[in-house]
Amino acid sequence: MAKSFTHRLRVRYVECDMQGIVFNAHYYTWIDDAYTELWRDAFGPLSALRDRGCDFVVAESSARFRASARFDQEIDVVVEVELMTTTSMTTTHTFFHEDQLLVEGRIRHVCIDAESMAKAPWPDDVREAFASYVGANV
Amino acid sequence: MAKSFTHRLRVRYVECDMQGIVFNAHYYTWIDDAYTELWRDAFGPLSALRDRGCDFVVAESSARFRASARFDQEIDVVVEVELMTTTSMTTTHTFFHEDQLLVEGRIRHVCIDAESMAKAPWPDDVREAFASYVGANV
Amino acid sequence: MAKSFTHRLRVRYVECDMQGIVFNAHYYTWIDDAYTELWRDAFGPLSALRDRGCDFVVAESSARFRASARFDQEIDVVVEVELMTTTSMTTTHTFFHEDQLLVEGRIRHVCIDAESMAKAPWPDDVREAFASYVGANV
Amino acid sequence: MAKSFTHRLRVRYVECDMQGIVFNAHYYTWIDDAYTELWRDAFGPLSALRDRGCDFVVAESSARFRASARFDQEIDVVVEVELMTTTSMTTTHTFFHEDQLLVEGRIRHVCIDAESMAKAPWPDDVREAFASYVGANV
Repeated sequence: MAKSFTHRLRVRYVECDMQGIVFNAHYYTWIDDAYTELWRDAFGPLSALRDRGCDFVVAESSARFRASARFDQEIDVVVEVELMTTTSMTTTHTFFHEDQLLVEGRIRHVCIDAESMAKAPWPDDVREAFASYVGANV
Repeated sequence: MAKSFTHRLRVRYVECDMQGIVFNAHYYTWIDDAYTELWRDAFGPLSALRDRGCDFVVAESSARFRASARFDQEIDVVVEVELMTTTSMTTTHTFFHEDQLLVEGRIRHVCIDAESMAKAPWPDDVREAFASYVGANV
Repeated sequence: MAKSFTHRLRVRYVECDMQGIVFNAHYYTWIDDAYTELWRDAFGPLSALRDRGCDFVVAESSARFRASARFDQEIDVVVEVELMTTTSMTTTHTFFHEDQLLVEGRIRHVCIDAESMAKAPWPDDVREAFASYVGANV
Repeated sequence: MAKSFTHRLRVRYVECDMQGIVFNAHYYTWIDDAYTELWRDAFGPLSALRDRGCDFVVAESSARFRASARFDQEIDVVVEVELMTTTSMTTTHTFFHEDQLLVEGRIRHVCIDAESMAKAPWPDDVREAFASYVGANV
């Protein structure tokens, strides 16, 4: 079974809008935050990837909003690796407050050469580090 | 032919990240900004909608990132109404720098009662205001 | 001796700019975050203050920037109550990365009636809750 | 008499918090935006400064909050150069909605070498470009 990773965050005052709920775009920032923590869990800090001359960019992202997070709530972001290819990784990010499903997000990152910013294959040790998260989808 | 609306913005320093490009989540904030301006163009300021006891929330959104906006560039966001139903509106937001396509975004908003935050039909004058933007898709 | 409170945070990618350092305005958001956590430590979640019909607004703030926080660093924000009057509270927020002083911030909040948003005295139990943080400065 | 510069912005939905007013830290981002536009007015886009191998960082900032900006309002930021020294520039940023004073901000930037990030003197043509804004304070 593929491993998943859960990132916990607390909703900040600055993230809540006049409707008393988290502004929609901030979930995409949280997707980014959780993705950073997935890397730390699987491989190490992102500086370790940059040390290999690699980085990544976002190719596409999406989210379905089911219910609203509110100020001061603790939110769990469950991150799963849906697909890993030679040059890309697709992760799903499912947001919960306690048992309530809030938002279902998905994002596809593409590996790039940090200098040229051209598409590049993931380094071998990155692929190995994520193997247990990818499960049957490698 | 359906009307479209173009919102122009300038990339701010705070929106650019260590890669020297606009951080991905900020495009979703720009989608929100451009949607506010679409309303102003079609119907009036959002306060006019709130005066009718209505508001809206985001049900889903997505974006494909083709190229990167950079600091200080002027960006055009072309907004088109793809679909308007009794309670929802789907708009596409296509980002350009001069002639270069940057990002293709899509967002679906749902009309709500501003008090109860329950789903509600768009007021008649809202539907009329957007009719010329919807074209054949009403 | 007056109690202080330390809030730890980790620098997020979105908070770093093209200079590779945290964008200056974000320290003021962090001051706000740390102030929320000071309240939790001293009194409880801010919802408990709102339950009493009170809230607060910012009257003034300032910061001196000595050194730069960078991506992925863990930052400690040491919060001290410098002065508490009938209607206001001044706190200092000193940012450290390990032993390095980064930023010295100060902010003055004013208690308001949550309905009218007019200046109001702090409730008695708020003053009691912060007494040990204020020390000789009550 | 010294020249001033006025930057106009419109309050965005994302910038307003649960109190229905602009979140305090965002004024500091607006100070940054207005400072970028002051440079464009006086000297040119910031890329022209970077072409000379120079950049700047923030040494200190402060703001007094008199009244609140609200969603959709057009805000004028009046920028004046209070002091320009060999290596620093202090500007004041006064926020108005129509005739109402909202916020009084002040920020001190320091010129740096873009490579080393060490303090550096402003280039001569920068000092000349700002001379008419500095007035008697040179």
